[in-house]
Amino acid sequence: MDPDALAKAFVEHYYSTFDGNRAGLANLYQEGSMLTFEGQKIQGSTNIVAKLTSLPFQQCLHSISTVDCQPSGVNNGMLVFVSGNLQLAGEQHALKFSQMFHLIPTPQGSYYVLNDVFRLNYA
Amino acid sequence: MDPDALAKAFVEHYYSTFDGNRAGLANLYQEGSMLTFEGQKIQGSTNIVAKLTSLPFQQCLHSISTVDCQPSGVNNGMLVFVSGNLQLAGEQHALKFSQMFHLIPTPQGSYYVLNDVFRLNYA
Repeated sequence: MDPDALAKAFVEHYYSTFDGNRAGLANLYQEGSMLTFEGQKIQGSTNIVAKLTSLPFQQCLHSISTVDCQPSGVNNGMLVFVSGNLQLAGEQHALKFSQMFHLIPTPQGSYYVLNDVFRLNYA
Repeated sequence: MDPDALAKAFVEHYYSTFDGNRAGLANLYQEGSMLTFEGQKIQGSTNIVAKLTSLPFQQCLHSISTVDCQPSGVNNGMLVFVSGNLQLAGEQHALKFSQMFHLIPTPQGSYYVLNDVFRLNYA
């Protein structure tokens, strides 16, 4: 698969896991992973998933608008830049967001998230 | 200087160069650099600056809203995620954008841009 297709597949897997079973995201991070969520830095898979599962909404649905991918120059890593919409249950309007991931291949032939930055696009 | 301060200083330098002397951005890219501009991939400092100087506006002013920074895990590199506004001369409304940079230290003690992804945040 070409890098763009791999990136798109990862992103679809990430958000469908987020929307369907948020605790399952633990498999996509490692202890060296870092998330910056709306400016707050969180280190390590356990802390990251604790943050994501404690967000003040239960059901949500991400829809992806754009996925841009580049080789990061480290260990066959990929930088992936996503824009999209986040619909929260019970809210009329979707929130627009931008997110970047730095993905590193695993020995199992998959990827994990080394770096993750999430920002809502305030109107 | 701490990484967040370095990232902020680089970003301020980048956008003031963009707004004041766009051709001067050539010094901030190298031949291995890649820009994805609104989905279009461009490789190498010369091509990147040709793209940026041929954008269909002359005067512009970037203002930065947020800067998030993480170590990229490669050669003391930094991932920098920016959100902000882009005001074009003669336009009433500013455009919102998100941009990420992967910065790599140079032997001269500065940084160059290895990866650059730019996206307007469409309303």
